[in-house]
Amino acid sequence: MRILVVNDDGYFAPGIRHLAKVASKFGEVFVVAPDAPRSGQGHAVTLVTPLRLHELGTEEGIHYYSCNGTPADCVKLAVKVVFGGDHPDYLFSGINHGSNASSNIVYSGTVAGLIEGALAGVPSVAFSLMDHSLQADFEPVLDYVEEVIRKCIETGRKDICWSVNFPKLPKTALKGIKVCRVAKAYWDEDAVERVDPAGRKYYWLEGDFIRKDDAPDTDLAYTDQGYVSLTPLHFDWTDYAEMERLKGLF
Amino acid sequence: MRILVVNDDGYFAPGIRHLAKVASKFGEVFVVAPDAPRSGQGHAVTLVTPLRLHELGTEEGIHYYSCNGTPADCVKLAVKVVFGGDHPDYLFSGINHGSNASSNIVYSGTVAGLIEGALAGVPSVAFSLMDHSLQADFEPVLDYVEEVIRKCIETGRKDICWSVNFPKLPKTALKGIKVCRVAKAYWDEDAVERVDPAGRKYYWLEGDFIRKDDAPDTDLAYTDQGYVSLTPLHFDWTDYAEMERLKGLF
Repeated sequence: MRILVVNDDGYFAPGIRHLAKVASKFGEVFVVAPDAPRSGQGHAVTLVTPLRLHELGTEEGIHYYSCNGTPADCVKLAVKVVFGGDHPDYLFSGINHGSNASSNIVYSGTVAGLIEGALAGVPSVAFSLMDHSLQADFEPVLDYVEEVIRKCIETGRKDICWSVNFPKLPKTALKGIKVCRVAKAYWDEDAVERVDPAGRKYYWLEGDFIRKDDAPDTDLAYTDQGYVSLTPLHFDWTDYAEMERLKGLF
Repeated sequence: MRILVVNDDGYFAPGIRHLAKVASKFGEVFVVAPDAPRSGQGHAVTLVTPLRLHELGTEEGIHYYSCNGTPADCVKLAVKVVFGGDHPDYLFSGINHGSNASSNIVYSGTVAGLIEGALAGVPSVAFSLMDHSLQADFEPVLDYVEEVIRKCIETGRKDICWSVNFPKLPKTALKGIKVCRVAKAYWDEDAVERVDPAGRKYYWLEGDFIRKDDAPDTDLAYTDQGYVSLTPLHFDWTDYAEMERLKGLF
């Protein structure tokens, strides 16, 4: 069994090393990950500059590669170059340093890696820990990662596309897994103005996360309460209810 | 009425100029667009480098700004800097030089601009012409652009998030608008290998578009037949059927 592991924080991030190690209990693991952080790169692909892929070596049986592209590029290059055109049996993305709950999925490179796998028909799972720090403690969540990977494999389904979020809590405080939906929210970015030494203005985006959903059955609500959230995703973005309404309009 | 117009091909692209001109029949138009092509950048946002915004001037009553970021950055900067924190009344994205039908929505900066508007509660429409050329002929589709903008405004709804695709056809061959769903498909990229002068390998992604959906009610099927497709999109990516199934698994 061949498993592709990707992320958006870079091949050197502790999160991907932990995920690769857990995944290696189930098969031969190939890490193909960005050579620098690519958070917030969404589903970007690199079409106008050349891509590089570096084989970094094998550690504890895990094969490491770095790529100068985005998470989606990593998946595409892995399939064609590392696996010689065959698809891996499973794709796992993460463990991300930071939340991918709620509307973060739109911007997330971790989730883009997940969806890139699922688009190609590979059963795929993304994992994210709600702690941005490079020193984040992943130990509390590793048993859950293993449980989710085991169930992903045991179900035997090809259409798996799950996003898992872990609250930042000690292991004893984690209450179990809740399957749930994505909460409605959005990032209301402020544009913080600065002036460079030449007197020219520039801006930093600085976000306020605005919740628009207080229902109890969402990834935000469950992680707030200490649960691990598991949200199955899909990539048919058609709004079917609106489609029916519009058929009378056009 | 204030209208924000964005794209991913850059402020200089003919497609955005045509869209701005049609939109200016309905209100005051502010074009805030990338300073270079950003196709395939998905919903990337710029968080680790500073953003620049340049006021380029006003032409035929249309205000032009360029930004060094992605389409999503353009929307965020426009709201905060150009509109001083208020939202525009409408957002129109495009007219893209190239298709955004089917799974192209995942990678599209044009669609990211659309969704960024819709996430903020602004009624938003994306327009794409199935012709990548910078010399593409937009004249055949401009009456349709005007009709869709008019209907977007007339409905008076805040939750509009429509993606419109035009086949590359002369005006007389266009058969009208069909409201429809997004076709299932994926890009199966090949990694074309080259060697640089220093003897190091590099790769170009080159895609084969694989259709997985022959049904007659999709954006691909209708544009194949000469119709303009209009697909309402949403950004709750929860797979509800899978969610119910999984509740028994975890």
